[in-house]
Amino acid sequence: MSSTADSFKAAFRHHPSGVAVITLDSTTGPVALTASSVFSVSAEPPMLVFSVAKMASASQPLHESSDIVVHLISVDQIDLAKLCAQRGADRFAGDVWTWSRYETGEPFFDAPAVRLRCRVTERVEAGASTLIVGEVLDIYISDDADAQAPLVYHDREWHRLDDGSVL
Amino acid sequence: MSSTADSFKAAFRHHPSGVAVITLDSTTGPVALTASSVFSVSAEPPMLVFSVAKMASASQPLHESSDIVVHLISVDQIDLAKLCAQRGADRFAGDVWTWSRYETGEPFFDAPAVRLRCRVTERVEAGASTLIVGEVLDIYISDDADAQAPLVYHDREWHRLDDGSVL
Repeated sequence: MSSTADSFKAAFRHHPSGVAVITLDSTTGPVALTASSVFSVSAEPPMLVFSVAKMASASQPLHESSDIVVHLISVDQIDLAKLCAQRGADRFAGDVWTWSRYETGEPFFDAPAVRLRCRVTERVEAGASTLIVGEVLDIYISDDADAQAPLVYHDREWHRLDDGSVL
Repeated sequence: MSSTADSFKAAFRHHPSGVAVITLDSTTGPVALTASSVFSVSAEPPMLVFSVAKMASASQPLHESSDIVVHLISVDQIDLAKLCAQRGADRFAGDVWTWSRYETGEPFFDAPAVRLRCRVTERVEAGASTLIVGEVLDIYISDDADAQAPLVYHDREWHRLDDGSVL
């Protein structure tokens, strides 16, 4: 069939993804978004990419600031992923999901077991979204990262990977 | 910790992904690669992105040809994904994984339930890889696509999503 927005969305409902939360500063304070569109591009130099919809509230800050933090999200932080995907929610109220700042200033959430501080090196306009390419400057992996179950987003549902899902 | 290739790889071992197989023509016939780095970028116009390592055999063809097919892979086609990830294997011997061509010429595998014929609109060099941005021209979704279990790649293992993994 020819490609329409509907058939395109139907096709990608068959494509699972990992989940990430991205934080950065804006002119009005820290902002955060949830992305199911993050992948590693290159290990040497370490680079990653994700996309942000132009209509997302984080789009403009991502065009203005190059200092970002990418958190890889496990099942334990599913509610953080939902919070940062929710339009208009205050992600930094700090009552449940506490946050801190790097010495270099970038805001980050304390809970996720893996996070990567990045410098945006390229922005590529692509249809209704922008591809953000980042070089990774600093990596944090908590001691209990391996004990956390990976989270997968698929067709508007969330899944846990564990011994029961392995092939 | 500071970012090294090793810590970067360790970080992304915590990031699951869907699986895709990409086919296209080269000067020596059809080529195929498996990618765990595909995501949808924009629904209107329909666009997707993936990355290919510069040292991959499909890298040069992807710089020379703009007509590609992206197959989204289910558990039923796990062996096709493994075949297309295997260095030096003949992906198009056709003894198990039969293939065809669109009227417009692009080679594709018959088995996957979802495939998207694309025109490459942009190539972005990023470290040791190239980001390939494609506009989707044509979409195929088989009648039994919903019945096929989604496949996830995570930390060098393969997982199946089903009712048992849903949260």
